[in-house]
Amino acid sequence: MTEATKRSTIRDVAAAAGVSVASVSRVLSGKYAVGASTRSRVMKAVKDLDFVVNAHARALNQETPGTVAIVIRSVTTPFLAHVAQGVEQQAALDGQLCLVCTTQGDPDREVAAMNLMREQQARAVILVGGVLVTEEYTSRMIQLAHSLDAAGSRLVMCGRPAPAPDLPVTVVDYDNAGGAYAITSFLLSAGHRSILQIGGEEMNTTATVRVAGFRKALKDWSVPYDAGTMRVAGPMTRAFGYETMRARLAEGVRFTAVFAGNDDVAAGVLLACRHAGVRVPEELSVVGYDDEPIAADLVPALTTVRIPTDELGRAAVRRVLHPNAGIGDSGIIGTHVVVRDSVCPPRTEPELRARRGGSGAL
Amino acid sequence: MTEATKRSTIRDVAAAAGVSVASVSRVLSGKYAVGASTRSRVMKAVKDLDFVVNAHARALNQETPGTVAIVIRSVTTPFLAHVAQGVEQQAALDGQLCLVCTTQGDPDREVAAMNLMREQQARAVILVGGVLVTEEYTSRMIQLAHSLDAAGSRLVMCGRPAPAPDLPVTVVDYDNAGGAYAITSFLLSAGHRSILQIGGEEMNTTATVRVAGFRKALKDWSVPYDAGTMRVAGPMTRAFGYETMRARLAEGVRFTAVFAGNDDVAAGVLLACRHAGVRVPEELSVVGYDDEPIAADLVPALTTVRIPTDELGRAAVRRVLHPNAGIGDSGIIGTHVVVRDSVCPPRTEPELRARRGGSGAL
Repeated sequence: MTEATKRSTIRDVAAAAGVSVASVSRVLSGKYAVGASTRSRVMKAVKDLDFVVNAHARALNQETPGTVAIVIRSVTTPFLAHVAQGVEQQAALDGQLCLVCTTQGDPDREVAAMNLMREQQARAVILVGGVLVTEEYTSRMIQLAHSLDAAGSRLVMCGRPAPAPDLPVTVVDYDNAGGAYAITSFLLSAGHRSILQIGGEEMNTTATVRVAGFRKALKDWSVPYDAGTMRVAGPMTRAFGYETMRARLAEGVRFTAVFAGNDDVAAGVLLACRHAGVRVPEELSVVGYDDEPIAADLVPALTTVRIPTDELGRAAVRRVLHPNAGIGDSGIIGTHVVVRDSVCPPRTEPELRARRGGSGAL
Repeated sequence: MTEATKRSTIRDVAAAAGVSVASVSRVLSGKYAVGASTRSRVMKAVKDLDFVVNAHARALNQETPGTVAIVIRSVTTPFLAHVAQGVEQQAALDGQLCLVCTTQGDPDREVAAMNLMREQQARAVILVGGVLVTEEYTSRMIQLAHSLDAAGSRLVMCGRPAPAPDLPVTVVDYDNAGGAYAITSFLLSAGHRSILQIGGEEMNTTATVRVAGFRKALKDWSVPYDAGTMRVAGPMTRAFGYETMRARLAEGVRFTAVFAGNDDVAAGVLLACRHAGVRVPEELSVVGYDDEPIAADLVPALTTVRIPTDELGRAAVRRVLHPNAGIGDSGIIGTHVVVRDSVCPPRTEPELRARRGGSGAL
């Protein structure tokens, strides 16, 4: 590790290079209105002295600020990226640096990353989003929670339940079940009774809760739930939404609305409908979850559930750096339905047959 | 900083807690088929011994792997996120951890982040994407390049030119001008002659090169370029694309195609057209740049320029970790046009008037 060197001045550089301060400044301006030999002498001096331009001398020479870390599978998932942005925003407000560690979902890389953050003595180490809960996962998290706690770091579960009771863990969650309940109720109140839920793996914490909210709404509206015909479990991806929808349309399965596990799945569903000539929402209503940026650009614009992702990230940092700021660890951040153009009341069979010349795939 | 402790075994934990190994394992399984007092004794021992589950003991106890770092403004920009993903992929292949530092575009945070990465002795510190070039920026980069070099780290400019000659910097770039030339030629060969270029700030390295490619294509097709009527400089955002397009349509300016500075700008342009009742591509052709995931879901699907962003990130890491792998520092990664549905030959004025009942805004 490099020792923080005593800050050298532009005069030290000029002296070491045997040139004038003006020449050094001309060189550093990047304009190079100086001879090559002068420049190389100045650059050598700059390097030897590890010289730092004034504008940033403070930043470069002061003690490294504290850090908060967020450990996620990938930064290409908008949900994760926006939570990371919230973490960055709050870290900046608190004068902390923000490190994002990506793991590609590899548990060993996740542990290695968290170990590095422990050595960094990151104030908070934030894990985000749903996971497949296994015994291995649970015991790993128990270890990490204690290991970080022993090093003065705090493990934060963001949009994910605590792995076990009585752990040194801060949980920051959003009302996932409430959002699923609300969007399902939105479909039900529009008159839909045969709703297909697509996407979300069994045992995934996020999917499990969304399906629970979906089922609770059906129950409250006295609509029987049949997992065999009303839910297709699988990855929350655009490809899975497309393939599943294409297959169901080909089978001529009857349903009037689709509740996609998230907006990516919904994008795949909409594409499959476009390819099959099924008009949304006239012939099929579609809703998603997450309100990713893409939702507003899909055609029709997608009715979905808004998660305040940036606030989720900010809250994760605040609750560690400001434990006494009156925000309890148990706080749940609200979600709400964003109504756009992808839902309308279901057509009756005769209407559909009339419009589709009898080939009522739905 | 915590010393890497000698690895303790499950037996040590059992001994310290005064319980059986089986009890420890039951507790760690997360199933808690054990009494509260046993659990708390085990957890105390686990914490005291900083015990690590076998599955990940190696990862947690071995020397921390090396790191590569990528310093970007935000992870919510798809282009930056995908480059970061490429960096992560190559880092994983080379057994390195990947740290993403986000700066919100604040130079002081950028310097502080790079300083931290220098202390981390990150093998590579990668800066991505275009910047507004100022003297302050140039001199800051000169300092950072030497400062990192002195610490055994390598500064990598990814999709960005070297700030100055003769610096210890690795440059990994894509054929930005070639992509702009190709997509402009695609519009020209479809018959378009009045093309409006929207988005990209003056002095931004990426925008400057794209406009140069745009102008070179116009020149090769003998189409005069008039900055006043053919380019609207500004941020590469959806909002700027929407507002600019709405204003130009309201003014009734005549052009048959739009070259959006990137896909976000194009998304805003398409929305403005939808709101104004201008059909794309029948009445106006639109192209973008970057081939972000959204491009395929826009309606009409967007014809744009594909940048191999993941490969850009992988190459940035490879060129530092494998300098002798036969990939020179000067290599440029190719770009190409992805043809979708947002371009068609321009309508003649009479055709447009006929279709639009005389109100020929275009």
